[in-house]
Amino acid sequence: MPRMIDKILKHIDDDHDAALGRLKDLLRIQSVSTDPAFASHCRTAAKWVHDDLASCGLDVTTHETERHPIVVGRYDGAGDGAPRVLFYGHYDVQPPDPIDKWHTPPFEPTVRDVKLYARGASDDKGQVMCFIEALRAWKAIAGAPPVNVTVMIEGEEECGSVSLEKFVPEQKDLLAADIAVVSDTSMWAKGQPAITYALRGLLYFDVKLHGPGRDLHSGVYGGTISNPATELVLVLGRLFDEKHAVTVPGFYDDVLPIDPAERSQWDTLNFDEMKYAASIGMDAVNGEAGFTTLERRWARPSCDVNGIYGGYMGEGAKTVIPSFAGAKVSFRLAANQDPAKIADAFRGWLELQTPPGCRWEITQFGGASPVIVPIDSPWMAPAKRAVEAGCGIAPVLVREGATIPVVAQFKTDLGADTLLIGFGLNDDALHSPNEKFDLDNFLMGCRTHAALLAELAT
Amino acid sequence: MPRMIDKILKHIDDDHDAALGRLKDLLRIQSVSTDPAFASHCRTAAKWVHDDLASCGLDVTTHETERHPIVVGRYDGAGDGAPRVLFYGHYDVQPPDPIDKWHTPPFEPTVRDVKLYARGASDDKGQVMCFIEALRAWKAIAGAPPVNVTVMIEGEEECGSVSLEKFVPEQKDLLAADIAVVSDTSMWAKGQPAITYALRGLLYFDVKLHGPGRDLHSGVYGGTISNPATELVLVLGRLFDEKHAVTVPGFYDDVLPIDPAERSQWDTLNFDEMKYAASIGMDAVNGEAGFTTLERRWARPSCDVNGIYGGYMGEGAKTVIPSFAGAKVSFRLAANQDPAKIADAFRGWLELQTPPGCRWEITQFGGASPVIVPIDSPWMAPAKRAVEAGCGIAPVLVREGATIPVVAQFKTDLGADTLLIGFGLNDDALHSPNEKFDLDNFLMGCRTHAALLAELAT
Repeated sequence: MPRMIDKILKHIDDDHDAALGRLKDLLRIQSVSTDPAFASHCRTAAKWVHDDLASCGLDVTTHETERHPIVVGRYDGAGDGAPRVLFYGHYDVQPPDPIDKWHTPPFEPTVRDVKLYARGASDDKGQVMCFIEALRAWKAIAGAPPVNVTVMIEGEEECGSVSLEKFVPEQKDLLAADIAVVSDTSMWAKGQPAITYALRGLLYFDVKLHGPGRDLHSGVYGGTISNPATELVLVLGRLFDEKHAVTVPGFYDDVLPIDPAERSQWDTLNFDEMKYAASIGMDAVNGEAGFTTLERRWARPSCDVNGIYGGYMGEGAKTVIPSFAGAKVSFRLAANQDPAKIADAFRGWLELQTPPGCRWEITQFGGASPVIVPIDSPWMAPAKRAVEAGCGIAPVLVREGATIPVVAQFKTDLGADTLLIGFGLNDDALHSPNEKFDLDNFLMGCRTHAALLAELAT
Repeated sequence: MPRMIDKILKHIDDDHDAALGRLKDLLRIQSVSTDPAFASHCRTAAKWVHDDLASCGLDVTTHETERHPIVVGRYDGAGDGAPRVLFYGHYDVQPPDPIDKWHTPPFEPTVRDVKLYARGASDDKGQVMCFIEALRAWKAIAGAPPVNVTVMIEGEEECGSVSLEKFVPEQKDLLAADIAVVSDTSMWAKGQPAITYALRGLLYFDVKLHGPGRDLHSGVYGGTISNPATELVLVLGRLFDEKHAVTVPGFYDDVLPIDPAERSQWDTLNFDEMKYAASIGMDAVNGEAGFTTLERRWARPSCDVNGIYGGYMGEGAKTVIPSFAGAKVSFRLAANQDPAKIADAFRGWLELQTPPGCRWEITQFGGASPVIVPIDSPWMAPAKRAVEAGCGIAPVLVREGATIPVVAQFKTDLGADTLLIGFGLNDDALHSPNEKFDLDNFLMGCRTHAALLAELAT
């Protein structure tokens, strides 16, 4: 007699075409969150998700926010003894521009070569539908999932998750869970699934240096007073030492050393640094001395100038000393670094570097903590088994250099670790024309989440 | 019996109102050179200057260029034994924007408080009319000037003097002179005339650093490859040492030491550094260690970042690693520095600093040599006497931090030193709304140039 999970996986396989049809329905909705002109489409998408979650047997509520609604579905029937899993995803998408670069229209989902092309196919509607289809299959075959489930689908991920940032701490009872699951990351490679167990945090500043009260003639004044553009470059140039390490005092104090077991696990990934560089049109990597590229990306903090501006920025020449110059400076924080502490250290360091006659205008844009789930966490073993059952191959354990702020919120506000199990690929063209989602990965995603529900129940 | 020069000075005094009327006529012509829409006004101004020079007894030719005509007037009647003086000025003006900031319309010259307000009043139409009125007075009283005279008035000074750069070497015979006189600088202070005997040179570059083939996500890639914005800041930060001196090898090799006689002459000017800083809204000066502000401005080379750009430059945050970043970097060159040599040294230094995986795109915009007329030059004594005769007070000898490229051309192409005798003031609002020219200074300028012609004849 086949086990329940085998019947469910077979149902998912048999139902794949219908699942694809449902995903296409969601992808047709132009739920671009950043542009107010598309607000009604976001509302339509929230309604669609609300109804679809309800059809999977969940009690669904739609929560109004200042911008786009947050949809929450709950299943509480597994009893107090069963764990509760919180699935998170988003129904909003990036703008489709430039539209003329798309081979087929962004909101007319089209299958070519076993890939589904549409805005949001991979980020994140396709991945959201993976766990919704898993819930649907459990309802169809077993009547209900084997654990308690909360699903939260927001509509502002692509425009800063501003409403969510307030919603999570306000709705602790509604959202409380033992473990969170986010499906918004990538596999290690086509055919090689991954579980992501750490994300870097983020600090972002605009640092503007003000000098003379007006723009000056660089012949008349050059060399005699602080030129904000020159001085900004001098100050930021001192932000790194000759080893490309950040010089802000205390910056590395709390960074966790890389565990030898992790390091040897990463070695097995056979990451090719030159191929990595070549994939972005470069012939060399570069970073903090003493670490490999994967270590720099996953386990070391970094600092980037994301933008710099001031003075004459047009074609040709203008001999001006600008009255101000500014830069966008961000830090990716490695596990265990505290954004507030690093922000204070950076501000203090900047103030000490104030050039004669100048003053800083420092603006901070949010801050997200890094997160890490220990690789020996009790949640890791069932997750690995689920991926193997869903994909037919064991996952590799990876970290991610980027930031998903809500994951830090789940830890801080709900006390829940997050399993990041994603089915995208690096070439999915997220935020770009011709975004796609591999249909093989879609199926693996539906199967894996179904198996995960079974594993979490044992 | 009064000397000829006294009669001429008296004539200038008596004719001042008529001279003011002529200057107003010229100022009414909207000869904005940078905007093609005003090309016909530039032509009108050239024609006006042509006719006015002819009325002063000169043989005038108007020379077509690719943009605005150059007007040259000559008087050859003083004979081969007499020296030839070349007067230079420009009939074009800066755009009047922002027009709503003007108290009276920019092209309706208006006198208030013994000052004439109009675009070009000081830069340079008012100063051009100083030497034209001097020639007119010599013709009226003596029939002709006492020396041979060439006057060259161009129409592209405010848009780069592109045509003049070719015209001067092509017209060496037409323009050949023993000494050039330029009236496009300022007095040291109201009531204190000055002779400017040195200008700094100029080198201007756009340096663009190219990295990845496209913009990258700073979370995914941060810390692992060269970020052009970060690396540009690091490279340019190394352009200065802790003494604020330029680190390009050989940069200071050819800079002339400051003569003790000059230094003590500058000390008598009682330059107030804090007043200077306060005048531009700052509470400190800053520059190369070991030099005063005047020394830094007049006798030391400087380097400025005139603009910097790259990555995200808008409001708020965007976590991007830009594919390129660039800066406008210029050098003011002190007397005896060679622009070509410094340009090569800077390019070579930049190439040595190329970050891994990056490449430079370096564009140079022109280059002008520094110029210096020795303070014991034989031309200096008659110039000083002329200023004293014209203004009633002896001039101070000053240098200028800015650049007038044509002056270097006069030296290189014609072998002629230049006397810079100007009658503007620092608060004349050149290139700004409400440009003005003090009428006292206008009169002093007419008188001084008339006296200079007399002095050069002796």
